[in-house]
Amino acid sequence: MKKYALIVAGGSGIRMGFNKPKQFLHLAGKPVLMHTIEKFYSFDSQIEIIVILAKSQIVYWEKLIKEFSFDVPHKTVAGGAERFYSVKNGLSFVIPPSLVAIHDGVRPLISIETIKSCFETASLYGNSVPSISPSDSLRIITDKGNRPLNREFIKLIQTPQVFDSERIIRAYNQEYSIEFTDDASVFEKSGEKIILVEGNPHNIKITTPVDLIIAEELFSST
Amino acid sequence: MKKYALIVAGGSGIRMGFNKPKQFLHLAGKPVLMHTIEKFYSFDSQIEIIVILAKSQIVYWEKLIKEFSFDVPHKTVAGGAERFYSVKNGLSFVIPPSLVAIHDGVRPLISIETIKSCFETASLYGNSVPSISPSDSLRIITDKGNRPLNREFIKLIQTPQVFDSERIIRAYNQEYSIEFTDDASVFEKSGEKIILVEGNPHNIKITTPVDLIIAEELFSST
Repeated sequence: MKKYALIVAGGSGIRMGFNKPKQFLHLAGKPVLMHTIEKFYSFDSQIEIIVILAKSQIVYWEKLIKEFSFDVPHKTVAGGAERFYSVKNGLSFVIPPSLVAIHDGVRPLISIETIKSCFETASLYGNSVPSISPSDSLRIITDKGNRPLNREFIKLIQTPQVFDSERIIRAYNQEYSIEFTDDASVFEKSGEKIILVEGNPHNIKITTPVDLIIAEELFSST
Repeated sequence: MKKYALIVAGGSGIRMGFNKPKQFLHLAGKPVLMHTIEKFYSFDSQIEIIVILAKSQIVYWEKLIKEFSFDVPHKTVAGGAERFYSVKNGLSFVIPPSLVAIHDGVRPLISIETIKSCFETASLYGNSVPSISPSDSLRIITDKGNRPLNREFIKLIQTPQVFDSERIIRAYNQEYSIEFTDDASVFEKSGEKIILVEGNPHNIKITTPVDLIIAEELFSST
C-alpha cells in the first residue's frame, strides 16, 4: 500500500532557550529535521514525505535546503495555530487508500526498524503507536497529595504513529479538543482502538538543550 | 541536624549485558559509584556516607578503592536479597535524631543543588522525594486495551529520597511487600505523606549501556 510520512515541525523553540527552532539546530553537522526526513527516505525511497512547518519558517527552510544541498524529495506544507491544525493541513495532501506515519520532526534518532514495525502493524490493524516502559518509579498527583502508580501498566508514547489514512483523516474531521495531546488521542476519540508496539529508548524528542547533547552522543555511537 | 547518605549499589548488572555491575563501570575515568559518593561528600564533608553493596562485591570494591586511591570516608555494608533488605541493613547504622538520604549508586549525575533542596525540605516536613515531569505522552494499559493518561498529574520519581531517620527506620520495620518499589513507598505505607520536590532531568539512572554513554556526555558538559 502507498505510504506517507507527515513530519510535524511547527515548534518555535523559543521556550527552551534556543535561539532558533529546535528542528533547525545542528546535529552531527546538519539540521535535526534533515536527519529525521532522511530516516524515512532510507526506510523506503518511494514513501511520500510531507514536512509541516510554521508558515514563517518556510523561507528559512528553503534557504537551508540550498545551503546543505539537501536532496531528499519532500513537500513542504504550512502548519496551523495548534499541532492539531498542522497535522490536519498535512493530511489534506494524503490520498487514501494508504498508510500515513505522523512523526515529530524533533525525533531524529528514530530507527528504521521501528518505522518498519509501525508500518507493518498498522497495515494489519489500522494503526500502531510505539511506546516504551518508564525506567523510574511513578507517582500521580491527587487532590489529597500524591500516590504511587504501578509503572508496569504505564507506557511512554513516542512517534511515528502510523494510521490507515482514511480513518485518520476522518478522525481529524472532529472538532479540536484540548485533550488531543498526540495523534493517537485524536484517532481514539473517533472510536478507534489504539494498538501499542514496542518503541526504542533512543528515539528521544529534542525538547531541551541537554537533549541535543544526548542526541549528538547517541548519533555518533549507534 | 546530623546527616547520613545511604548509597544503595547492590545490583549485579548482569541483566543489562554489562560484564560487571553497573556501579563499577567507568564514567570519566573512574567507577560510577565513586562519582556518586563524591557528590554527597562535596555537598557536606561532615555527612556520614554508608555504601551498601552485595556481599560478594565488597572485596572487589576494596580493591577498587586502593587502585583509584579513593579517599572519601565511608562505611561499606553488605546488602540483602532485595533492595528492601539492603536499605534496612544500611539503616541499622543510622542513629536518630538525624536525616538520611537514600540514593541509587547508579545515579552519579545527581546535582549538589538537588541534594541540598531535598535535605532542606526533609528538615521541614520529615521527608522529600525529587521528581520530574515526563516529556512524552502517556498511556495506561487496561483490561480493555489502553487509554491516555494526563501527564500533567504524573511524576517520574528519582533519588535521593530524604527522610527523618526515626520515621524511616520505623517504616522499614514493616514486613516486606512486593509493592515497595522505592523508599517513598515504604515510608508512605507506614502512614506518612510523601512530599515531592523538583528533581533534575540530568539525574539519570544508569540501567542500560546507552545510559552510560549519555552520562559520559552529560558529565563532560555540565
